[in-house]
Amino acid sequence: MKLLIIGGNGTIGKFLTEHFSKSFEVIVAGRSSDTYQVDISNSASIQELFDKTGMLDAVICAAGEAKWAALNDLTEDDFYIGLKSKLMGQVNVARIGRKYLNKGGSITLTTGILADDPVLTTTSAAMVNGAVHSFVQAAALEFPPTIRINAVSTGVVADAFHKYESYFPGHVAIPMTEVAKAYERSVLGKVSGEIIRRYGY
Amino acid sequence: MKLLIIGGNGTIGKFLTEHFSKSFEVIVAGRSSDTYQVDISNSASIQELFDKTGMLDAVICAAGEAKWAALNDLTEDDFYIGLKSKLMGQVNVARIGRKYLNKGGSITLTTGILADDPVLTTTSAAMVNGAVHSFVQAAALEFPPTIRINAVSTGVVADAFHKYESYFPGHVAIPMTEVAKAYERSVLGKVSGEIIRRYGY
Repeated sequence: MKLLIIGGNGTIGKFLTEHFSKSFEVIVAGRSSDTYQVDISNSASIQELFDKTGMLDAVICAAGEAKWAALNDLTEDDFYIGLKSKLMGQVNVARIGRKYLNKGGSITLTTGILADDPVLTTTSAAMVNGAVHSFVQAAALEFPPTIRINAVSTGVVADAFHKYESYFPGHVAIPMTEVAKAYERSVLGKVSGEIIRRYGY
Repeated sequence: MKLLIIGGNGTIGKFLTEHFSKSFEVIVAGRSSDTYQVDISNSASIQELFDKTGMLDAVICAAGEAKWAALNDLTEDDFYIGLKSKLMGQVNVARIGRKYLNKGGSITLTTGILADDPVLTTTSAAMVNGAVHSFVQAAALEFPPTIRINAVSTGVVADAFHKYESYFPGHVAIPMTEVAKAYERSVLGKVSGEIIRRYGY
């Protein structure tokens, strides 16, 4: 199985790369990759990436940013950071990447608990996560029956919990092994159009 | 009570205008309004509208568009039609409009069943509806305690059912009186951060 992980240098991407590399051929792409550099906020850059990778069995996108700030402080342009990157970046990975999937292949996008259970300063981040959820459900209806699309939405992952804990009162860390299992459900399972939620409650 | 209905000439807006005018002072704004013309995809136009209306007790936004087309046919620019209008248009109505609300006032945005239960050709429309849901939940956390924000998400409303029925196999028409009740829950009730779903199942 040939698996592309976009955002392979982020907290989740790094763990998934290690995890899936035990059993599969993993290509790691990211902003700081030498060979597979990609800026997902730019669809031409995504197209170039897939031109390089060729056909794949699975694509995981664990990339994309959105601005965290109080609603009072977020400008309209600030909202577009998330719309262009974490939202349309992932939508474009799905739109372009699906043409590079072998039969049985899958696209797995990454969202997060904010979509369903936001905290302060996350109006923009929550919004793009919720958008990706509804996109995935709608897109699955139109994907050919031989390929699939899902999103993994976890609570704050254990490896980043120390960094985000204060923003998430009452939330629990999601163990990285559970995070990996969520992605396995999409990559190795048969589900499509599913929002794979792992919130620890 | 002074109530602004944006999109007052659409199917839902027209019904709500008639409904709420029985008890309240209703200002109707829309693209084709003479006095209160507004293009919600343009935040300067939204600002001008609120400069004209002055302080309000409630704002209902039943405006905003998104392109319906097969995922294969939607261009990246097509997605931005919905992002700029139905998504950021409503976000900007909330961001700007909340400064014009009296104590106890509310913003009510309009989404739809596609957020949770999409049909073919609605990847873009579903996406923006889901985005608004998560935005509303996150924004409510940061609104002052004296003002509120909710979204009403109905199935295909009865007055438009003949037009959309073929796109929505198995769906039922939501009676307009039930639609009005959903908006009443937001405008006259005390809830905030709620997605008021009326799907008929």
